[in-house]
Amino acid sequence: MEKLEMIYEGKAKKVFKTDNEKQYIVEYKDDATAFNGIKKGTIVGKGVVNNKMSAALFALLEEEGIPTHQIELLSDRESLVKAVKILPLEVIVRNVAAGSLAKRLGLEEGVEMKKTVLEFSYKNDELGDPMINDYHIQAMEYATDEQLDTVKSYALKVNEVLKKFFLEINIKLIDFKLEFGLYEDKVILADEISPDTCRLWDADTNKKLDKDRFRRDLGGVEEVYQEVLERISKKK
Amino acid sequence: MEKLEMIYEGKAKKVFKTDNEKQYIVEYKDDATAFNGIKKGTIVGKGVVNNKMSAALFALLEEEGIPTHQIELLSDRESLVKAVKILPLEVIVRNVAAGSLAKRLGLEEGVEMKKTVLEFSYKNDELGDPMINDYHIQAMEYATDEQLDTVKSYALKVNEVLKKFFLEINIKLIDFKLEFGLYEDKVILADEISPDTCRLWDADTNKKLDKDRFRRDLGGVEEVYQEVLERISKKK
Ligand SMILES: Nc1ncnc2c1ncn2[C@@H]1O[C@H](COP(=O)(O)OP(=O)(O)O)[C@@H](O)[C@H]1O
Ligand SMILES: Nc1ncnc2c1ncn2[C@@H]1O[C@H](COP(=O)(O)OP(=O)(O)O)[C@@H](O)[C@H]1O
Ligand SMILES: [Mg+2]
Ligand SMILES: [Mg+2]
Repeated sequence: MEKLEMIYEGKAKKVFKTDNEKQYIVEYKDDATAFNGIKKGTIVGKGVVNNKMSAALFALLEEEGIPTHQIELLSDRESLVKAVKILPLEVIVRNVAAGSLAKRLGLEEGVEMKKTVLEFSYKNDELGDPMINDYHIQAMEYATDEQLDTVKSYALKVNEVLKKFFLEINIKLIDFKLEFGLYEDKVILADEISPDTCRLWDADTNKKLDKDRFRRDLGGVEEVYQEVLERISKKK
Repeated sequence: MEKLEMIYEGKAKKVFKTDNEKQYIVEYKDDATAFNGIKKGTIVGKGVVNNKMSAALFALLEEEGIPTHQIELLSDRESLVKAVKILPLEVIVRNVAAGSLAKRLGLEEGVEMKKTVLEFSYKNDELGDPMINDYHIQAMEYATDEQLDTVKSYALKVNEVLKKFFLEINIKLIDFKLEFGLYEDKVILADEISPDTCRLWDADTNKKLDKDRFRRDLGGVEEVYQEVLERISKKK
């Protein structure tokens, strides 16, 4: 398998063609952005952490029956993945109030939600990823009803699997963002699962082990990325 | 029936107790606000228009099987209504892209939606009526699942009835906001239906016949409120 030309450079990753048109290579960068790209920086070693962590979690999810894009880890920063057509949706799963949800609904950060909350955003940087609901998705044809049903049921299942997994390494899964894509006309989980895309709090101390340390200038950013990967690696 | 003390003064109406604890008197004011209360003004005669128009539309909706709070028109500015416990939801029904929807999704104002869009906001001035979805409503217990189902089906039915009604007076119903409340444990339609709460465009010219003239300083505000009421009155 050969790495060919780059077809997309995003905020956190580069995507390359391969000699197999159904497979891409994703390369994870150390670039960090927040607030829809307004805040920019570097988190040294982040690309390696996010690549390895995503690979481990996608493998776990596959075992639990969730189809994912991950094929194999190629190097510290590279993974071979199934080439999908990304659905233009960011799917946010929330167990505990934090970030924009806490602000918007006037909740204290850390308050447990009485039911798991799913939110959808239209993945569009120019528009700032606006929040949308089922009716917008239908009217704008961002996904079919069947695809949306699948996305919702996978998202809730991913939440159950990951909540349990993280608790075993003494981490509370507060919330996270997923992206899905179409591969051979089927919905599969794509993109990444990492401290960039999850809120992870130490279960004893509530210490933030995720990108909020970068967003909010809390310091010790590199250290917590390493810490999360270490806890995951020790467990396996 | 006696008008007793005022129990609530909102941005557009005052609510009074009566000697019947199950009934309130609503008094419509000429006060106009926009952008969550930041812009303030007066639209002379608005209270009379909104009171009479709401009374007429609630009567029409009752005929079509939608339970509403309206009991009777008492005077130019006053209506007797069923006293409800308002559900803390603003229900927005959209046929055509306009206002915040057009902005958020990057649509031209006036583009017809492929399917009717329902949106929900948490009715809370301090938080700026944030948009919410079914999961937030469940997790925060803003309404039960059964109440929410009823709200959705009434909202879509109201849309069908009003779209048809307005077209008969040469007006396109672009979008509108509803509020529902509980009366004897049942969901009924409450609040008002007026140029304050609907976007109404002349079907031939697309002239705005609603509060957007006030929001956007388009002039001729009083005139279009009168115009809409006249078209409704002539039709009956
Ligand atoms: N398996 C896949 N196939 C195709 N595209 C993918 C796949 N997984 C993720 N992507 C997309 O590749 C890009 C990854 O780069 P990223 O830096 O996260 O981009 P962005 O700044 O758009 O979030 C994203 O647009 C993501 O949706
Ligand atoms: N039938 C009813 N029973 C009780 N409250 C009602 C009824 N109809 C409307 N209301 C409430 O009365 C208030 C009406 O005043 P308004 O000026 O529109 O207030 P606001 O500024 O809160 O929108 C609103 O809070 C509305 O929800
Ligand atoms: Mg991304
Ligand atoms: Mg009101």
